[in-house]
Amino acid sequence: MTSPSALFRQRLQSNAAAVEATLAALLSGNTEAGEIARPERLLSAVRHGVLNGGKRLRPFLVMEAAALFGDGFAAPALRVGAALECIHCYSLVHDDLPAMDDDNLRRGQPTVHIAYDEATAILAGDSLLTLAFDIVAAPETMLADRIKTALVLALARAAGIGGMAGGQALDLAAEQKAPDAEGIVTLQAMKTGALIRFACEAGAIVADADVEARSLLQRYGETIGLAFQLADDLLDLTSDAATMGKATGKDAARGKGTLVALNGQDWAEERLNALVGEAEALLAPFGERGAILVETARFVANRRS
Amino acid sequence: MTSPSALFRQRLQSNAAAVEATLAALLSGNTEAGEIARPERLLSAVRHGVLNGGKRLRPFLVMEAAALFGDGFAAPALRVGAALECIHCYSLVHDDLPAMDDDNLRRGQPTVHIAYDEATAILAGDSLLTLAFDIVAAPETMLADRIKTALVLALARAAGIGGMAGGQALDLAAEQKAPDAEGIVTLQAMKTGALIRFACEAGAIVADADVEARSLLQRYGETIGLAFQLADDLLDLTSDAATMGKATGKDAARGKGTLVALNGQDWAEERLNALVGEAEALLAPFGERGAILVETARFVANRRS
Repeated sequence: MTSPSALFRQRLQSNAAAVEATLAALLSGNTEAGEIARPERLLSAVRHGVLNGGKRLRPFLVMEAAALFGDGFAAPALRVGAALECIHCYSLVHDDLPAMDDDNLRRGQPTVHIAYDEATAILAGDSLLTLAFDIVAAPETMLADRIKTALVLALARAAGIGGMAGGQALDLAAEQKAPDAEGIVTLQAMKTGALIRFACEAGAIVADADVEARSLLQRYGETIGLAFQLADDLLDLTSDAATMGKATGKDAARGKGTLVALNGQDWAEERLNALVGEAEALLAPFGERGAILVETARFVANRRS
Repeated sequence: MTSPSALFRQRLQSNAAAVEATLAALLSGNTEAGEIARPERLLSAVRHGVLNGGKRLRPFLVMEAAALFGDGFAAPALRVGAALECIHCYSLVHDDLPAMDDDNLRRGQPTVHIAYDEATAILAGDSLLTLAFDIVAAPETMLADRIKTALVLALARAAGIGGMAGGQALDLAAEQKAPDAEGIVTLQAMKTGALIRFACEAGAIVADADVEARSLLQRYGETIGLAFQLADDLLDLTSDAATMGKATGKDAARGKGTLVALNGQDWAEERLNALVGEAEALLAPFGERGAILVETARFVANRRS
């Protein structure tokens, strides 16, 4: 029998391949109904920003959360996952800009504004952000309109001024004035937490799950979002640029507070264990079906790259 | 009896006031369900970018196109118009950035990156773009989910890589290498045409009009989009910064081709008259109800600021 951990790794890999293929197909040179033309250089920059062989954790969460409710939701969950990945990648493209985090490397490759230019990177991000909503609403996403509307709304709120974009603004402000513990929690809940929470909730929305299940998935998403950020802060302290494929130690260098910096590494390790336990408890009602997402929580807490 | 032209001006003004009030209400400090917090400085930048007393032509088109089909669509058309205005204003905020058109003034006020900073302007644009889809999908927009889905899809395609964002990429490329007449037509259809076409089509979608009516409105939108751009090119040649509240003569200074530059001012004036005639003919099936949109075509063609 395959161990849960091996099964998790298989699924992470096969889901990522499916997401990559879906995104590649969506970003061909062909126009869709209502489009006029896709300028070649901009399209190429968009592909650079999104077809980058990432782990595709957020789409994975959408797909596996939907799978909790049965096997019939794989196709629309993949499309919604691809849409969410467009949002995630747009945020990376914009965050890397000189006016923001000014990063030249992302997963070992030149960032979009380095490979192309700043204006193109801004427009590539804008295009990816817009494409996300296109994908959810498109007829190829086989979901009831009621479900599409719920997804558009939840995604917009997770990504917008009250979620991820607002979190990036708080992150930039934190360079000027280090936030207190409460401020860090809010910042991280918005900047990275909101999309991860949405990913898990989106699986329940795709599956048209009841309010209770939707709320469980939301809480599971919040829990692993916290673990993700703690692991990230630990990594930023302990790893080097070669392992990460991007600049590291930057948060500390800029004087940004993290909870790890405030409370120490031991506290962080303990907290990560507790969060994995919480995630496991939240998934208990799903029985055996929850095994992959329990494994996911462990992976998120223990990741070292 | 009020003349059509006076009636048009009344409606343009009252619709703009309604749009302004709607946007102001949407951009309060209060969070909506699913949002975590709205960072004050970013919210203020977003408000600066969108609550600027513009003519609100695109929302006006949504509202008046919907009114062709009866009086019951005013409330949702206003919401959809406000969403569209968020897209328009996000594009202005991003286009004004130093890496793009590098403009310091917009409607006589400092642009967002001048009043705040570049990073905040990027995030304000991202937030406005995201908010547009939020507004369409939100429960306060009283439309069937089927109609919301159609609006999200059409808006995303009008605004994305195959529409407005792509058009801005072509516009930047045009500074390096002047496009031929065909290239100019594509660029303008994408950069300004797509949103104006969407505005008119959206009115028909909101009213759940039949395919034929939707197509008429699309064509009306394309026609006045062409007129809008020609009038803009004429203005850029002939007006001064004081009238426009922004830098002018920039297109010519950068060597960008316009159809006016290629074909001359007399040609442009004739073409504008012909486009108004075409718009009028497209509206004929709507009888008296079409009078406001006929007037709108005249206004768009003759505007001198």
